[in-house]
Amino acid sequence: MAMGFSEADVISALKKVFVTANPRVLVGIGDDAAVVKGDAQQVITTDMAIAEVHFKTEWSSAFDIGRKITAANIADVLSMGARCDYLVAAVSLTGNEELAWIENLARGMKDEADRAGAAIVGGDIARSSVITIAMTAIGHTAHPILRSGARVGDDIFISSLPGWSAAGLELLTKEISLNSSIADKALSEFSAPSLDYEVNFLQATSMADISDSLLIQVQQVAEASGVCFDLDTELISQCAEFQELSALAQEVNSDIWSWVLAGGEDHVFLATGKDLPGIRIGTVVEGSGIRGVEIKKAPVSWSHF
Amino acid sequence: MAMGFSEADVISALKKVFVTANPRVLVGIGDDAAVVKGDAQQVITTDMAIAEVHFKTEWSSAFDIGRKITAANIADVLSMGARCDYLVAAVSLTGNEELAWIENLARGMKDEADRAGAAIVGGDIARSSVITIAMTAIGHTAHPILRSGARVGDDIFISSLPGWSAAGLELLTKEISLNSSIADKALSEFSAPSLDYEVNFLQATSMADISDSLLIQVQQVAEASGVCFDLDTELISQCAEFQELSALAQEVNSDIWSWVLAGGEDHVFLATGKDLPGIRIGTVVEGSGIRGVEIKKAPVSWSHF
Repeated sequence: MAMGFSEADVISALKKVFVTANPRVLVGIGDDAAVVKGDAQQVITTDMAIAEVHFKTEWSSAFDIGRKITAANIADVLSMGARCDYLVAAVSLTGNEELAWIENLARGMKDEADRAGAAIVGGDIARSSVITIAMTAIGHTAHPILRSGARVGDDIFISSLPGWSAAGLELLTKEISLNSSIADKALSEFSAPSLDYEVNFLQATSMADISDSLLIQVQQVAEASGVCFDLDTELISQCAEFQELSALAQEVNSDIWSWVLAGGEDHVFLATGKDLPGIRIGTVVEGSGIRGVEIKKAPVSWSHF
Repeated sequence: MAMGFSEADVISALKKVFVTANPRVLVGIGDDAAVVKGDAQQVITTDMAIAEVHFKTEWSSAFDIGRKITAANIADVLSMGARCDYLVAAVSLTGNEELAWIENLARGMKDEADRAGAAIVGGDIARSSVITIAMTAIGHTAHPILRSGARVGDDIFISSLPGWSAAGLELLTKEISLNSSIADKALSEFSAPSLDYEVNFLQATSMADISDSLLIQVQQVAEASGVCFDLDTELISQCAEFQELSALAQEVNSDIWSWVLAGGEDHVFLATGKDLPGIRIGTVVEGSGIRGVEIKKAPVSWSHF
């Protein structure tokens, strides 16, 4: 590497960040593979983030970038009704990063993994012209909650209001600087979304992670379940967060419904069932697709492909 | 995408390639995560490959590139004395790839996974300026074989002769075209190494995957075990493969020992123990480091960082 430290230095630093006392991790980083205690039924998911596509190093700290991609992977595990146990990370670096930046990336990963009660047990680093972070998350559940389980008569819930990440992105791309806690929340949620760990959807009939946008994931769950999702914008607009986000939208002359319905990367959970916590946003009915909303603007979420 | 197909088209094509009748895969690609049957004790590893660093699309077919990165991940699982069960792949594409190229990449992954008896259960695709393939492999074993288990008095074995990949790389970089089955083998091993699935090292006291080079992995295992690896070049040079590779080295005026000792990416297995199959190359003695070889040339393996 050009910066005066070697691959061995990086691995040594990362081993220190990722050290864990988790008794289920039998052999951690350092052998050909980690050795861990498993479970009878597991979930596995992988999600990658690429510089200038999913994040910008000018916009987000290494710590937040690490948290964000880790949160994206954990969200996919949680949205199966599972607990996240283990994570691995494959990271390509350009060689222009400071060792401190790499360590902070790892610390961000560790921070989010700790929130989920998961351990980072392995990784790979390589040289590339672009920073790429690919993570895999492994969890366990006795009762996976699939996208296909929504039934006619179920209520539809979200764990919190999506749209904050899209709002933050808009502030950054339009270079709008606001001195308000609401704007700070949008910027923070864009840099590293806060997962709704405390919202218990384990009794849901179906569940998904809203990573692309509320409308896209609703469409996918409705299709997987063979039902129609009848959304109620009145219900959505009654939640406390909506008032905050609405004030921000007015301040920057933007459409809150584009943020809420078409914004991506919030990693809010969508669920169906009866008497669930979170925000009720509609009802599952017979038919297909989505009812009750029209989206006038094009989606504001990033197209990652 | 620019090529007249969408992300949905790619995912649809990949789902078809990766479809599996494996009864341990309960929910395959399509939900937020795959659901699989687990095991009491598992191994997890991740390994990434980057275009122009680990492979070149001019040099290798998409099928071979897919096989190679899958083999690299599987080798890390096997070198723990484990069986490989599940794989996931995160792939970034530039948008200039043909759909057929992407499908062949997936077919190569599936081909190698099938050889190992493993299923590819999930993935992610994203857009980037550089093709990056990050895979994670999960396997199981009741008795993991670590790098730290080599004991004084053990014999040292390799599952087959390393160096073929380095030889293939040299033919490609020097643009040497030879019409011989030995040259073809070198080129083939560079594009996609053949793993020694049939060599049973389950009784080994220590084991590692030779991915960087024989000397680097020997050094690592010796250090992890707190012993010295006394290698015998006479033993190495007696194996049948050595004669073949030696003839190729002479033909292109290169040093076979650079290939064998310092070449990388063969994914041959290194093991210690008694009465193991494969090629015996030395003895574990008291001390530290490596004895019995000198390497005059700089390593020919690629530096990936």
